Amino acid sequence: MAEALRVGIAGLGTVGASVARVLRDKAAELTRQCGREIVVTAVSARDRSRDRGVDLSGAKWFDDPIELAEKADIDVFVELIGGDEGAARSCVSAALAAGRHVVTANKALLAKHGVALAEVAEKKGVLLNYEAAVAGGIPVIKTMREAMAGNSVNRVFGILNGTCNYILTRMEAEGLTFEACLKDAQRLGYAEADPTFDIEGNDTAHKLAILTSLAFGTRIASDDIYLEGISNITQADIRAAGELGYRIKLLGVAQRTESGIEQRVHPTMVPTASVIAQVHGVTNAVAIETDILGELLLSGPGAGGNATASAVVGDIADIAKSRPGFQHGPVFGRPAKELRPYKKAQMRSHAGGYFIRLTVHDRTGVFAAIAKRMADNDISLESIVQHANGSDGVSEKTVILVTHETTEAAVRKAVDGVTKDGHLTDKPQVIRIERAG
Amino acid sequence: MAEALRVGIAGLGTVGASVARVLRDKAAELTRQCGREIVVTAVSARDRSRDRGVDLSGAKWFDDPIELAEKADIDVFVELIGGDEGAARSCVSAALAAGRHVVTANKALLAKHGVALAEVAEKKGVLLNYEAAVAGGIPVIKTMREAMAGNSVNRVFGILNGTCNYILTRMEAEGLTFEACLKDAQRLGYAEADPTFDIEGNDTAHKLAILTSLAFGTRIASDDIYLEGISNITQADIRAAGELGYRIKLLGVAQRTESGIEQRVHPTMVPTASVIAQVHGVTNAVAIETDILGELLLSGPGAGGNATASAVVGDIADIAKSRPGFQHGPVFGRPAKELRPYKKAQMRSHAGGYFIRLTVHDRTGVFAAIAKRMADNDISLESIVQHANGSDGVSEKTVILVTHETTEAAVRKAVDGVTKDGHLTDKPQVIRIERAG
Ligand SMILES: NC(=O)c1ccc[n+]([C@@H]2O[C@H](COP(=O)([O-])OP(=O)(O)OC[C@H]3O[C@@H](n4cnc5c(N)ncnc54)[C@H](OP(=O)(O)O)[C@@H]3O)[C@@H](O)[C@H]2O)c1
Ligand SMILES: NC(=O)c1ccc[n+]([C@@H]2O[C@H](COP(=O)([O-])OP(=O)(O)OC[C@H]3O[C@@H](n4cnc5c(N)ncnc54)[C@H](OP(=O)(O)O)[C@@H]3O)[C@@H](O)[C@H]2O)c1
Repeated sequence: MAEALRVGIAGLGTVGASVARVLRDKAAELTRQCGREIVVTAVSARDRSRDRGVDLSGAKWFDDPIELAEKADIDVFVELIGGDEGAARSCVSAALAAGRHVVTANKALLAKHGVALAEVAEKKGVLLNYEAAVAGGIPVIKTMREAMAGNSVNRVFGILNGTCNYILTRMEAEGLTFEACLKDAQRLGYAEADPTFDIEGNDTAHKLAILTSLAFGTRIASDDIYLEGISNITQADIRAAGELGYRIKLLGVAQRTESGIEQRVHPTMVPTASVIAQVHGVTNAVAIETDILGELLLSGPGAGGNATASAVVGDIADIAKSRPGFQHGPVFGRPAKELRPYKKAQMRSHAGGYFIRLTVHDRTGVFAAIAKRMADNDISLESIVQHANGSDGVSEKTVILVTHETTEAAVRKAVDGVTKDGHLTDKPQVIRIERAG
Repeated sequence: MAEALRVGIAGLGTVGASVARVLRDKAAELTRQCGREIVVTAVSARDRSRDRGVDLSGAKWFDDPIELAEKADIDVFVELIGGDEGAARSCVSAALAAGRHVVTANKALLAKHGVALAEVAEKKGVLLNYEAAVAGGIPVIKTMREAMAGNSVNRVFGILNGTCNYILTRMEAEGLTFEACLKDAQRLGYAEADPTFDIEGNDTAHKLAILTSLAFGTRIASDDIYLEGISNITQADIRAAGELGYRIKLLGVAQRTESGIEQRVHPTMVPTASVIAQVHGVTNAVAIETDILGELLLSGPGAGGNATASAVVGDIADIAKSRPGFQHGPVFGRPAKELRPYKKAQMRSHAGGYFIRLTVHDRTGVFAAIAKRMADNDISLESIVQHANGSDGVSEKTVILVTHETTEAAVRKAVDGVTKDGHLTDKPQVIRIERAG
């Protein structure tokens, strides 16, 4: 049998401790699958005294993860610290520079420095694996990087943040407000104390940026992504969506269009009967549409120590099965040097259907005025629902419009027009509709 | 750049011609992804004069695929002839014996001779890739063989036959009979002239046998699979399922139980709100439940020239990215020599919920007799629906029972009892209910 693969783990938190545990508990099975042992020979975290729930006495402790990356007796460096700068970036760079394979779950790091790191890895002839960085346990990186060789992607989209999906699922199932569901998510550990990063879509954007690069062979540019979070989604939206045959999901979408590549994160109406609409709670899902294969959908746990560790262990096992002299496929599917800057499609040229919910004064002429604004902007309507609002005395109405395919620019102009007409009693709500199978 | 990877294709039908076309149309992109060219240098089929819709003038023609496998200037032999014996088996064996990598889409061959072929491949140190053999374009082999390293599978199940799913989808959507939908499927090319192999579940069983081996590290034994096809599913079943919140799908299920490994193919009730219930038409889906990752679901096109070719090309690209000296992971996830004969769970010990539809004489005491038979066999009922049948003069009733978890043995005994009681006016219908998320 070949020599054991020596692994160093930096970061022993939720994911790192799970990885150490799985490598130990499944040692025999992994040896059988990989044809060699996988042994954790070095570890690093901040607090040496903390109990990690797994016996690490066989591994050498390093206070400094950079020292571990450079000097420990390891073949693979596993980074599970997190963050796009600081310790994580330094130690991953150090490991690659030292010619060590790297496995990481760090989407923030890859979204910011992925291409530069990939260039180093490819120059050094080592692997940089990051299955866990996007959609946790779902093997979307392997699928796009390996299984879809030769395919041209038209669109990739998905539910990439469990916190948001949990909140939207509970809002719909129980009729609760966004705020109440967020509190519960925090109580249950599904949302951070500062949830902004999740609920405003930044986390989704990091993952989408990585998928975009794999899909289109472009350089990663997560700052260019159009962002809209879920904090302004109300029960009125969710109920109206249901009545119209839709469900609201926070999607990340990257799409090839005539005017460039669209990258956007926003609440989205998907048909209730679509597969992705049945993806509930903290579960994630990714759909990929290509010219040869067609449409593929993967769903599964997007986070959690074990599910994420499963992806990290899969990445380590792939390295264990490889041997010196093996020349690897490129980190982002194409050589990092050849990843192109992408032509960004402007959000205003986005084409699609729209859901528009307007709260208006209940008086003559309002509906005609709205209809005129739509017609003036060449927006044709698929359906119109209007109903009187609530209790007596309030002369207010809700008007819900679903448009046929139109553009973001047209919708913005029309809604601005309606707003200027002075008929609205509340902020207009606009939610994009996404085709989904 | 490394030398070109030389590919020989035996079989230029639906899949083979698509593979040749994709390798040609996507040559530049594949070179970029694999770091070397992929060139078709040899081909074989029965009829040399047939137009394959792709220029093959650069490739050497072989009348005999075995000669191609042994003597052509190739690095990879791609078998797309089909069949579990004859030409396909001979040429795959010959290629492996000659130390050539093999890619195949042939589920029948693998279900019957997969372990023996894997032993040869592993002894010779070559790859035997077969992503296209199960669920067409869905990367389920890669997922189970690579991404899930270290996971222990509890259950794997799926919609693995597009013909059956197409028929069941149309039956439900349009209220047509099984026979009418089958005819349409044949007209549209979704079903063979002799559809027995698809609709009786044999094709699903071949694919399930391969998944079982990957899931549990067992030797393949497709003859041991419990088989029930969809030809006796009626509109009455589909309507009753809908009313109870279920949809009927032909599933292949392999599951670890206390009494051994269950392998079964049969029509199944899955909750209408589950993801797998939204998998319509010819689309396939596979769900995998493991101890570490949790539950993963993959859905996508299970057949068709292009989708299948995508998987074949992915397999070829994986070989192109590898290099001589690279020692590969085992064909079925564990070394073929170590795959264990599996302990087969008896179908009678299967535990689960059941749907039972009985057509009975409308007379006093019938219902009490049915209830007694259930109680005598310790079957507790979740729901009971009964309604009078059709037109006047017919004193017939339908009784639909949904059981809580019970065993196959108990259900068979109870239904036999009811039959012996003489109250039935038609064959009883029994459909198993499957948990699905
Ligand atoms: N949690 C998930 O479900 C999940 C899912 C997908 C991806 N990820 C990614 O996985 C990574 C790790 O996440 P996590 O949830 O496991 O984080 P975590 O629980 O906060 O763990 C972070 C670990 O890093 C250690 N650490 C922090 N700074 C360090 C330094 N300067 N030197 C050495 N060690 C240091 C900490 O040490 P102490 O324990 O001593 O404080 C801790 O063990 C992140 O990139 C995250 O985005 C997580
Ligand atoms: N079609 C699908 O959607 C699909 C999906 C998944 C897997 N598969 C699998 O892929 C394989 C190929 O299927 P297919 O649909 O492409 O079959 P097909 O259209 O019937 O093509 C079979 C090819 O094999 C050639 N052939 C037959 N006997 C031969 C022999 N003795 N020597 C050389 N060539 C021979 C035929 O030559 P001629 O053309 O000259 O007659 C034909 O080109 C099968 O194993 C099938 O199970 C197919």
